[in-house]
Amino acid sequence: MKALQLTKIKQPLVFTEVSDPKPSSKQVIVHLKAAALNHRDLWIQQGQYAGIHVPIVLGSDGAGILEGEKVIINPSLHWYKQSPFPPKSFKILGLPDAGTFAQQVAVPSKNIFPMPAHLSFEEAAALPLAGITAYRVLFSRCRTKKKDRVLISGIGGGVALMACQLAIAHGNEVWVTSSSKAKIKKAVELGAKGGFLYTEKDWYKKASERVGGGFDAIIDSAAGDGFGDLVKLANSGARIGIYGGTRGKINGVIPQIVFWKQISILGSTMGSGQEFAKMLQLVNQHKIVPVVDSVNDLPQGNLAFRKMASGKQFGKIVLKM
Amino acid sequence: MKALQLTKIKQPLVFTEVSDPKPSSKQVIVHLKAAALNHRDLWIQQGQYAGIHVPIVLGSDGAGILEGEKVIINPSLHWYKQSPFPPKSFKILGLPDAGTFAQQVAVPSKNIFPMPAHLSFEEAAALPLAGITAYRVLFSRCRTKKKDRVLISGIGGGVALMACQLAIAHGNEVWVTSSSKAKIKKAVELGAKGGFLYTEKDWYKKASERVGGGFDAIIDSAAGDGFGDLVKLANSGARIGIYGGTRGKINGVIPQIVFWKQISILGSTMGSGQEFAKMLQLVNQHKIVPVVDSVNDLPQGNLAFRKMASGKQFGKIVLKM
Repeated sequence: MKALQLTKIKQPLVFTEVSDPKPSSKQVIVHLKAAALNHRDLWIQQGQYAGIHVPIVLGSDGAGILEGEKVIINPSLHWYKQSPFPPKSFKILGLPDAGTFAQQVAVPSKNIFPMPAHLSFEEAAALPLAGITAYRVLFSRCRTKKKDRVLISGIGGGVALMACQLAIAHGNEVWVTSSSKAKIKKAVELGAKGGFLYTEKDWYKKASERVGGGFDAIIDSAAGDGFGDLVKLANSGARIGIYGGTRGKINGVIPQIVFWKQISILGSTMGSGQEFAKMLQLVNQHKIVPVVDSVNDLPQGNLAFRKMASGKQFGKIVLKM
Repeated sequence: MKALQLTKIKQPLVFTEVSDPKPSSKQVIVHLKAAALNHRDLWIQQGQYAGIHVPIVLGSDGAGILEGEKVIINPSLHWYKQSPFPPKSFKILGLPDAGTFAQQVAVPSKNIFPMPAHLSFEEAAALPLAGITAYRVLFSRCRTKKKDRVLISGIGGGVALMACQLAIAHGNEVWVTSSSKAKIKKAVELGAKGGFLYTEKDWYKKASERVGGGFDAIIDSAAGDGFGDLVKLANSGARIGIYGGTRGKINGVIPQIVFWKQISILGSTMGSGQEFAKMLQLVNQHKIVPVVDSVNDLPQGNLAFRKMASGKQFGKIVLKM
């Protein structure tokens, strides 16, 4: 089969012929129609992960055909029952096992779910990793309730956008942050109530004034020196979900706010099969369409990696087989 | 009645005659036999709290007599039902309302509980604020289960010691940290498995080697630059409860550990009447005796404040009426 292969760290991927995957007794072969990029793929290509081996076919997100049916793949391998943390056997599709940037992929049959009928293959491929991550952090970890006011930082990334869409569908009042006015505008078009430029000095004070208080749930993947500002925006009893750390170490958090307001700071990554199923239910019920930034053909996968590295995308970068 | 009164910020307290308290229809008058100091009292005396007014009788902890019965006082006012955060009317006994450093105190009848029969007045006075705070952070917030390995930082303080005693009674394997070998030794005498000097370089690496892994629950009141080391000692799914911030802003937390290990950092302060009752049940069942560092007569209250300021105490500093 044809695949986009990482043959050397920090080098462009190579579109090449590789052996067809051989399924184990618990696996099935999905004939992929579309895949999508995640930051994870870029970081692996840049050598920023432990346990990287080459050559490897990357890719955690995929949609395709299994026995004539349209399916999507849950990329959380060996984590099926909802639990506080995944079992030791947990891994993410696309390292160490071969992933979805190929014509075929072998995955456990438990990871196969029917593709939502209202989505194209490209839209469906944009859903799995962002969807399961957003669902778990928003609902399982932060226990976001219908009346909660929600803040989602760094809108534009796949998980942030999916969290935004899921929370809006769930009935929440959703606000976003970004360094880009254009991204905030797009989030408002999706149904967010408004947004704040975190690049502005004391933006959190303006945010608090504008919403008339604080937030009950905050979803962040930046961490860094700005994390303390998010804590200042937390209401009493608020939950701050953190699923990434693009800005490095968490600094400058005032502990007195954390304990006086009984705030919970909750790490979350990926999710279980049960959470994937619940996420799909919400997507089907509300006909949520994941935001696709752009679609490239698989042989042009390096264009997609460069776009992801630029950080300019709004939504998922998709590869078409 | 006689009382120890704060008449001016940053000045010694004055032992003097003040008016007897006048109870509202929902309040009762407790004739106090013993009271105990908390850091809160010291910080108020030093002017480090909002809303301080003088003259004021400080003191949150007390045990005494009500209608011929021995009673202790729950210092959490107007927070009765267990909830994610206290109601707006919540206050702590001893500011803005007059506290327990006096012969009598007026408190809501809902805040009165029978004194554990195995305790003296001095021991009972050492229990309330530390007990309710430790119970909530350990069991309600961190959901510590019987098999969990628990780390309690800064052993010697009232809440840390009570958390240590409650967790040991609950059946946990408990470890402690301190800057003092003598305090660690005393904690081991109470039933802790061992302890670590957090003043030693890379102490957390030695701790991890010694226990053969990490901790499921960590109880901290320091925050500061060392908080990141506690995060490094967290097991997957661990809960880190934080009820204080003596070392200032939380810095240096690696977000990747927080989200990969699905860690929860949980702010907690005081607790509800329901939690106070559950704490008392555990204390009665296991005949837990709060650690009393020293007892001073009420007129010598300033000695007690100086001892608290020195940080040399191990256990509660008690005042006797």
